[in-house]
Amino acid sequence: MAGAIDAAALDQIFLSARSQNKWLDKDVPDSLLKQIIDIMKMGPTSANCQPARIVFVKSAAAKERLKPFLSENNRAKTMSAPACAIIGYDVEFYENLPRTFPHNQSAKSWFTSSPSFAEATAFRNSSLQGAYFIIAARALGLDTGPMSGFDQKGVDGEFFTDGKVKSNFICSVGYGDPSGVMQRLPRLGFDDVAKII
Amino acid sequence: MAGAIDAAALDQIFLSARSQNKWLDKDVPDSLLKQIIDIMKMGPTSANCQPARIVFVKSAAAKERLKPFLSENNRAKTMSAPACAIIGYDVEFYENLPRTFPHNQSAKSWFTSSPSFAEATAFRNSSLQGAYFIIAARALGLDTGPMSGFDQKGVDGEFFTDGKVKSNFICSVGYGDPSGVMQRLPRLGFDDVAKII
Repeated sequence: MAGAIDAAALDQIFLSARSQNKWLDKDVPDSLLKQIIDIMKMGPTSANCQPARIVFVKSAAAKERLKPFLSENNRAKTMSAPACAIIGYDVEFYENLPRTFPHNQSAKSWFTSSPSFAEATAFRNSSLQGAYFIIAARALGLDTGPMSGFDQKGVDGEFFTDGKVKSNFICSVGYGDPSGVMQRLPRLGFDDVAKII
Repeated sequence: MAGAIDAAALDQIFLSARSQNKWLDKDVPDSLLKQIIDIMKMGPTSANCQPARIVFVKSAAAKERLKPFLSENNRAKTMSAPACAIIGYDVEFYENLPRTFPHNQSAKSWFTSSPSFAEATAFRNSSLQGAYFIIAARALGLDTGPMSGFDQKGVDGEFFTDGKVKSNFICSVGYGDPSGVMQRLPRLGFDDVAKII
């Protein structure tokens, strides 16, 4: 039975971590982006479905392709980030279940028989994986800037041209410049959001 | 600029952590359940919307109310868990925005003007918060057992009687018995799910 992780780690991944709006001019090597995925993938998903698909937009040319689909207040900060991850979900994630959930070869049929159940499962679990992505990046010493303000259909048409992946949210990754961090916004308390019965 | 958190912490929250199917007979004090929420709430949500609402089902009487809505393979293990959190989302989360996103008093109208945008925002962000919940519990030394196999409408009618909260997923919390852990299921690799452009 483990105790709590050390206070510095908890600070780094949750308590002191802040979403970033301004980025230091410091590259994030591809090897570190790959490490985010190697950590993220270990987080649990329903029936091990792993629907998240990630495009790291890193080169200047790729950023120019993303730019027109960003909402205006997200544009400049995203262009200056070392990388911006488009976190999407594969609507046909169930095609992988025979190898990722091998002990039940009928699992795929749970989803092929109900497109709305498949869509909800993909959206829920890619969101879980998006949160794992944020925490994994922070655990590696990176900062993140997650955003929902962008043209989803536009991004899908530009970056997910096979029509099987839909974007969920985007998340810049790099080393934040503390001067761009906003005042911490108020959180709802335990009694506002939870109860024990 | 921080480095990575220590290897033991990363193991505990991601790399060695496993979903549990069997629980030790060891109580989780209410104070520890409250700490999960105090950590979870610090994770980022879009426009600080914080839609997650949590009911910790802990007493024998409350567990009996949950029991009929669990899928058969989740029933016995959930009944034996010290607590099971129902993680839902408030479809009217935007009512809190004037105090949680105080610098933009028109933020509420983004959602009241589009019920489908409000629903997607609540579902996405409560899923992010559900993932924060899992990682926060692990960070505190607890084990988790997240599940999607339950009757959502039944749970909503029993536990969210005001009609404003919908269940997203459920997650048992406690101290896992290693004898119930299944073989680690295969993860998709970087090249299966991601690319850098």
